[in-house]
Amino acid sequence: MGVWEHPEAANICYLGLFAQQHRGQEGAGVVSRTRSQDGAPSRLHAHRGMGLVADVFENFDFELLPGDSSIGHVRYTTAGGNLLSNVQPLRADISIGPVAIAHNGNLINSDALKDELIRSGAIFNSTADTEVILHLLARAPRLHADRDTYVREAVIASLQRLKGAYSLLIMFEDRMFAVRDPNGFRPLCVGLLDGSVVVASETCAFDLIGADYVRELAPGELLELTPSGGERSVFPFGVVRETPCVFEYVYFARPDSKVFGRDVYGVRRRLGAELAREHPVAADLVVPVPDSGMTAALGYASESGLPLELGLIRNHYVGRTFIEPKQSIRDFGVKIKHNANAEVLRGKSIVVVDDSIVRGTTSRKLVAMFRRAGAKEVHMRISAPPTIDPCYYGIDTPQKEELVASRLSLSEIKDFLEVDSIAYLSVEGMYRAIHGGDPENAAKKHEAGAPGEPPRKRFCDACFTGNYPIGTPSDCGKKQTELLPS
Amino acid sequence: MGVWEHPEAANICYLGLFAQQHRGQEGAGVVSRTRSQDGAPSRLHAHRGMGLVADVFENFDFELLPGDSSIGHVRYTTAGGNLLSNVQPLRADISIGPVAIAHNGNLINSDALKDELIRSGAIFNSTADTEVILHLLARAPRLHADRDTYVREAVIASLQRLKGAYSLLIMFEDRMFAVRDPNGFRPLCVGLLDGSVVVASETCAFDLIGADYVRELAPGELLELTPSGGERSVFPFGVVRETPCVFEYVYFARPDSKVFGRDVYGVRRRLGAELAREHPVAADLVVPVPDSGMTAALGYASESGLPLELGLIRNHYVGRTFIEPKQSIRDFGVKIKHNANAEVLRGKSIVVVDDSIVRGTTSRKLVAMFRRAGAKEVHMRISAPPTIDPCYYGIDTPQKEELVASRLSLSEIKDFLEVDSIAYLSVEGMYRAIHGGDPENAAKKHEAGAPGEPPRKRFCDACFTGNYPIGTPSDCGKKQTELLPS
Amino acid sequence: MGVWEHPEAANICYLGLFAQQHRGQEGAGVVSRTRSQDGAPSRLHAHRGMGLVADVFENFDFELLPGDSSIGHVRYTTAGGNLLSNVQPLRADISIGPVAIAHNGNLINSDALKDELIRSGAIFNSTADTEVILHLLARAPRLHADRDTYVREAVIASLQRLKGAYSLLIMFEDRMFAVRDPNGFRPLCVGLLDGSVVVASETCAFDLIGADYVRELAPGELLELTPSGGERSVFPFGVVRETPCVFEYVYFARPDSKVFGRDVYGVRRRLGAELAREHPVAADLVVPVPDSGMTAALGYASESGLPLELGLIRNHYVGRTFIEPKQSIRDFGVKIKHNANAEVLRGKSIVVVDDSIVRGTTSRKLVAMFRRAGAKEVHMRISAPPTIDPCYYGIDTPQKEELVASRLSLSEIKDFLEVDSIAYLSVEGMYRAIHGGDPENAAKKHEAGAPGEPPRKRFCDACFTGNYPIGTPSDCGKKQTELLPS
Amino acid sequence: MGVWEHPEAANICYLGLFAQQHRGQEGAGVVSRTRSQDGAPSRLHAHRGMGLVADVFENFDFELLPGDSSIGHVRYTTAGGNLLSNVQPLRADISIGPVAIAHNGNLINSDALKDELIRSGAIFNSTADTEVILHLLARAPRLHADRDTYVREAVIASLQRLKGAYSLLIMFEDRMFAVRDPNGFRPLCVGLLDGSVVVASETCAFDLIGADYVRELAPGELLELTPSGGERSVFPFGVVRETPCVFEYVYFARPDSKVFGRDVYGVRRRLGAELAREHPVAADLVVPVPDSGMTAALGYASESGLPLELGLIRNHYVGRTFIEPKQSIRDFGVKIKHNANAEVLRGKSIVVVDDSIVRGTTSRKLVAMFRRAGAKEVHMRISAPPTIDPCYYGIDTPQKEELVASRLSLSEIKDFLEVDSIAYLSVEGMYRAIHGGDPENAAKKHEAGAPGEPPRKRFCDACFTGNYPIGTPSDCGKKQTELLPS
Repeated sequence: MGVWEHPEAANICYLGLFAQQHRGQEGAGVVSRTRSQDGAPSRLHAHRGMGLVADVFENFDFELLPGDSSIGHVRYTTAGGNLLSNVQPLRADISIGPVAIAHNGNLINSDALKDELIRSGAIFNSTADTEVILHLLARAPRLHADRDTYVREAVIASLQRLKGAYSLLIMFEDRMFAVRDPNGFRPLCVGLLDGSVVVASETCAFDLIGADYVRELAPGELLELTPSGGERSVFPFGVVRETPCVFEYVYFARPDSKVFGRDVYGVRRRLGAELAREHPVAADLVVPVPDSGMTAALGYASESGLPLELGLIRNHYVGRTFIEPKQSIRDFGVKIKHNANAEVLRGKSIVVVDDSIVRGTTSRKLVAMFRRAGAKEVHMRISAPPTIDPCYYGIDTPQKEELVASRLSLSEIKDFLEVDSIAYLSVEGMYRAIHGGDPENAAKKHEAGAPGEPPRKRFCDACFTGNYPIGTPSDCGKKQTELLPS
Repeated sequence: MGVWEHPEAANICYLGLFAQQHRGQEGAGVVSRTRSQDGAPSRLHAHRGMGLVADVFENFDFELLPGDSSIGHVRYTTAGGNLLSNVQPLRADISIGPVAIAHNGNLINSDALKDELIRSGAIFNSTADTEVILHLLARAPRLHADRDTYVREAVIASLQRLKGAYSLLIMFEDRMFAVRDPNGFRPLCVGLLDGSVVVASETCAFDLIGADYVRELAPGELLELTPSGGERSVFPFGVVRETPCVFEYVYFARPDSKVFGRDVYGVRRRLGAELAREHPVAADLVVPVPDSGMTAALGYASESGLPLELGLIRNHYVGRTFIEPKQSIRDFGVKIKHNANAEVLRGKSIVVVDDSIVRGTTSRKLVAMFRRAGAKEVHMRISAPPTIDPCYYGIDTPQKEELVASRLSLSEIKDFLEVDSIAYLSVEGMYRAIHGGDPENAAKKHEAGAPGEPPRKRFCDACFTGNYPIGTPSDCGKKQTELLPS
Repeated sequence: MGVWEHPEAANICYLGLFAQQHRGQEGAGVVSRTRSQDGAPSRLHAHRGMGLVADVFENFDFELLPGDSSIGHVRYTTAGGNLLSNVQPLRADISIGPVAIAHNGNLINSDALKDELIRSGAIFNSTADTEVILHLLARAPRLHADRDTYVREAVIASLQRLKGAYSLLIMFEDRMFAVRDPNGFRPLCVGLLDGSVVVASETCAFDLIGADYVRELAPGELLELTPSGGERSVFPFGVVRETPCVFEYVYFARPDSKVFGRDVYGVRRRLGAELAREHPVAADLVVPVPDSGMTAALGYASESGLPLELGLIRNHYVGRTFIEPKQSIRDFGVKIKHNANAEVLRGKSIVVVDDSIVRGTTSRKLVAMFRRAGAKEVHMRISAPPTIDPCYYGIDTPQKEELVASRLSLSEIKDFLEVDSIAYLSVEGMYRAIHGGDPENAAKKHEAGAPGEPPRKRFCDACFTGNYPIGTPSDCGKKQTELLPS
Repeated sequence: MGVWEHPEAANICYLGLFAQQHRGQEGAGVVSRTRSQDGAPSRLHAHRGMGLVADVFENFDFELLPGDSSIGHVRYTTAGGNLLSNVQPLRADISIGPVAIAHNGNLINSDALKDELIRSGAIFNSTADTEVILHLLARAPRLHADRDTYVREAVIASLQRLKGAYSLLIMFEDRMFAVRDPNGFRPLCVGLLDGSVVVASETCAFDLIGADYVRELAPGELLELTPSGGERSVFPFGVVRETPCVFEYVYFARPDSKVFGRDVYGVRRRLGAELAREHPVAADLVVPVPDSGMTAALGYASESGLPLELGLIRNHYVGRTFIEPKQSIRDFGVKIKHNANAEVLRGKSIVVVDDSIVRGTTSRKLVAMFRRAGAKEVHMRISAPPTIDPCYYGIDTPQKEELVASRLSLSEIKDFLEVDSIAYLSVEGMYRAIHGGDPENAAKKHEAGAPGEPPRKRFCDACFTGNYPIGTPSDCGKKQTELLPS
């Protein structure tokens, strides 16, 4: 989240992060900038902490984040581990001046770059791949006397070293850059609030702060915001082949956001409808797994004509940890979040709709809970293809060997989950759903590929197909390891 | 929540409270009992705190709550104010011995009793009406040499002084009492866990801890649990006229609980269906207000044949307070919890289904948000009758003059909310919904009243009708005031 | 500490507590009173917490303790255990109205009174003996229509039931009482700050807040402070026989306070001088045990002519707990507070001066540390008589069987501590020191007793003599036990 | 503090820091090392926080700092500002591998080095000068294939770039270095605990953990600790001219430590005695300013024959902040720490002994307090020469213009403090005191200088003379500024 030249930049940034809390729950931070004034230097001010946005900024005094511009970040995943030093935005003093950086995505060549940088004398203080970008910026040579050109070229030269997924905000004392990698893996969009430019991963942030949505950044676009409203875009990567992340539609983005030009809710509902067409069941009820499976379940119910019932109730009062009795409770980990609604389920044949199955352990416990609550038959329907490969572009999926759909055949999964039937949406069905509500895009959908190439080539679907558009970290010569633990 | 003679009484009690967190978010506490052993006296151990169960017991060491029995409480509302000293269970040393007490409900004669007690030398340390019960117990004369009879008679004599709504747990060093007031305003049910008796307001607590539901306590029933599994019930109020709270169905209880012999989810869904029959609209979509209006909206959509769409998205990451910019954001208070899903709403005529309107301010902001998101027409449908009178029996409704349905006529409410139409479910419709799914109860439904008396007489519906089955505090000679501020 | 009718009553009270922190480190609290105004009732506001004053009130907003009068307390000891509910001032609603009470001292008939009160219907919420006083006040009958007389008589009637040591502050909505028990065991003095009356245990509190010392309350005096500066004293116990606590001089009071008409520092220094006269040693150095033995050591050194050296250095940065390695460190518990100064001690014969030895375990470790640091001879000199009996009047001494001077003979103590010699000041020497600097009191010193009776009869010295002026709890029919644990 | 190859390295390190708490109260940290084992890499683990050691490590679980070696640090001062990112030990991943560093002292060429490093691409994350050392290490070229030689040469090359005061601990995965700068400004000494090497600034750390003192590191000595007890020293700076800090004796070190070959207590006592010889007063009493002036006051009293009395009592229960009433209290800031003991002072002529006067504001308030408490005459005696110049070598003195002895003449200081007389110890007197107890050093004291050169040339006394042995930051081409605020 970024805010450029607005009198309450930090406060707005924090609210924008709150609206995007689903994109990262491990840590949050905001860096603000006060302009150089009366000879006093421009300064960056930071507040970061572990945990949810509302906790990190509880009772926070925004006078401590003064200035007219800001960037913010919520931390997710983390190859680098769950450390305060990894919470972004990262901030440092480098040759260009003070800088702060917020990164959504994941680099695949960060280990190789890190090795190279360390060998040439760099110090690494975090385990986050983002720190590599800081070092590249710090070492970019000054090839131009003119500061404008110098800074822009330094940014471009640094970006050109990166491989992977990145939607970035980079704030210097006198300008801010927003950039999407040439594949456009992660979303990044631009809005206007009281005449000031705001930038966010998802449009739901604009809704909360009352900003107007303007547009998405294009893949490979580098937007530069300069004092007093100046704006300019350059495309340092030339012709790009965009492959936005299909999983943003399936699971990650908030349903009320608009992502990659389509509304997430509509796509997700069509995924459910397509699933109903591909894999109908003669059951009594459709039961969503809340909250993630809710929208697809609505689509499934509507298409199939089966009634949707809330056969699983979610408890939203969730703390960090729960103390279980020694005589441990059956399915405790699942029950602390969900309870089967026995009155709805008793004696019924049900279609359970969820958006994905990762390891399968939670699903297995849910199925057992449905059965104990009296469900006669349990049919599992997943509104996406089987998750068979890890993501290296910014989604925290486990190793391939932990993915149930990678380890087991469909019939083995059925046995493992102890369901009466299981079916996943096909890859083709997924793309039909994505493009379905999108007549004007339907025309465009072949543009990116050669004639005759199937439309799905416009997206990265590596988690479902193993087809990695830019390869994996091992293609960059290095396994990912932690260098700076604890 | 109570647990009698189970080796992990306190831990189980805490989990039962967690499952019932919706019944009170202001504070939580557990008191456990260690039995007298080897000459050491029986003892009560307490842990209480302000806030949510998960926070009060975060990283808690349950070795600090040893013993085989426990009672717990989540605090809601509070005539007495939001103070740590009001967090229950209350605990004291009295003539009968150490005692702890947890109270769901509200007494209407507590001020009169408090005055009388203070005049005769009592000390009040909290502002909670529950403390009155402690004092009555403390002053109950010892009329019987036999401790069994003495304690039971002391409890009965104290209860007979109370007027109002109470489901109570009273734990002494050698026994525990569970009681529902003769009207049975609030639920209280009994289960079994590994052979030990557990008591809870709602059955969803049993689901989490894996206990089996046995039955509800009857209105006016006093259940006594004694060492080694002994149990006995007495009915000290003679013939009772039960009037359980209808609002438990409409709003308060969790949908996956069974309350007053019926499943809440089923009732709530039928309330929506009945609403659709009474007040149909020719609209494009049904939009629930999550989470409270979700179940009724399903019923409305199903009955009306209109599609249900998630036109309003709830953000479940909610903190205690949010810092708003000085240039305040339009509808900030509403938007921090809900966002309109513009892609669903744009150009559509929508039926918004919620379970109640109290002051009307939130509804008004939601309607404005729907319109700004593009809704063409907004029709509000409420799955209960208008809330026109405050509750004195344990639900925290505001004063009558703050209730929008009390201040304004239906057409004025329409204008105030700026909706295209508004309609509430009728009282009769509400009872049809309650009894609808209930064929065996349908027969019984006339038993409580005279022949021909409408079935609704079995419930307290004072908030919708002003018909208070046992009067109000002003009938007990005293206005409710705070005595012990800070 | 009490403040009557000063615009910043609570803040001043807190500072007065801070100055008297040495009198209790377990908890602290302040209750303030807002006057009845414009029909709004008078109210009491409280803030209490476990720990040091500076911690309990860190970043505290004194707007939360409004009003013009206040009482405060620091908690020490505690037969009742270390519980938040025991932190004073206690506060309650009773028949006289809201009341708060702060108690320095210890009642010896509290268990008997508590039994009686519980039998007649009282509820006990704390385990502190002070709660008994609240109950007596609550039950005092209204014998006078006139509120002035009624309240005063109620206080007097309650006090007349008490046996033991008490300096009390009792604050009602319209007046404050300060009282010392008829023996005057504990100090209590009156000062003036900007024309307002302030009351404190020790005069060092007046120094910090800038108040002027006026006088001590007399034993058995009940001072009543009424609105707008009214003051009156009554003596409800008739002729009293005062026995102030000699241990206040020996150890408890701060050296810069004036207590029972004498400056503590002067007394303590004379105790050291007297000790030097009674028990000289041909040693090289006098080494004080800081901080408690410092003043007496100065007196010893000055009288003996031996040089005083800081052979033991105290570390004042002390936290609550320290984590010791598993291979535990020799004398860890002592060393975390004190370190032997080897350069001073090496090869020297030293006189170690301390004010008392209780269990002897710390002294034993200090002696061992001196020897390891190179001391050639260690002579222990104690500036008070042997502590042989517990105090029941407000000092937290351990049980008789834990007191080393009760268990062992002098020569056994010498062996236990592994010193070259040990000597205590005699009881006569102690009284010579107390009266020594006190020519005008020297005349008065016989007044309290019969002619010829030794002057020491004016003090309670039960801890040194076993001579309890008003008996012990067992004389009141009851052993002290904990009733409300946890 | 460092611990090399001891099974409880981190716990011991923390205790050593606690004993040296007086050297820095702003923050504390420990970094531990687990050895490479079974193919798992060697790792560094850190815990750091703001505040006192006891607070940072309260309830800390030392399982979180595993391993057999550790270094720790307490943070003091800080040109860089009071930030968590400045709390040491600093830790990073660099070309040599993981490294942690703890630094006592202050570099005078850090700004020049920082500029140079940033220009060549370095990133600065803290504002501490210590980070410069990390960067120099990171950039040291690998000139030797042999790791032993490589690492040692890298350390030496980095150290050779530094100007200023530094006692450093540098821990790599396979070795630890301890080094004192060639001037030996700050102390650093070596001990043995259960056969393991421990390193600390002051010997009082060894006393607490039970280690045996072995020796001081020599100025310019680089001690390398290698696996399994290996040790080697090199002297990379050739012939050095040592100038240890005289202020360690005057004020900074703990009196029970041995520093630069002499016991601090003895020196400090002789400073007082010398002061009495140089500046006698015909007064009644010697009054120390506790705790800093205590030892010198003992020396003054002993030499002068005047009695020492505790005319000023220190309150050791000190919190971070105190809330003062709006009608502010006279001398509040002083009184919260000290109270005048009026009974001692009344009518007396006193000699107040302190170790230094910096800004003079505290002394002025103390004098006023003495007078209000009744002192007839107040003579101030300072056991060191006037502080006229700031320290750039690791002591946090204010700017020259804030030093009262720099701004004012002696008679003006007398007027400012409102004393009857004031005198400082002479520089010569100071050195007499230092060397006085030191017969064997008295012989050596000319060794460092040319024949006839006064002995004081062995120490840095710049704060008293303005004679900076290695110049000031402005000699290194750069003013000290903060680069990374907030």
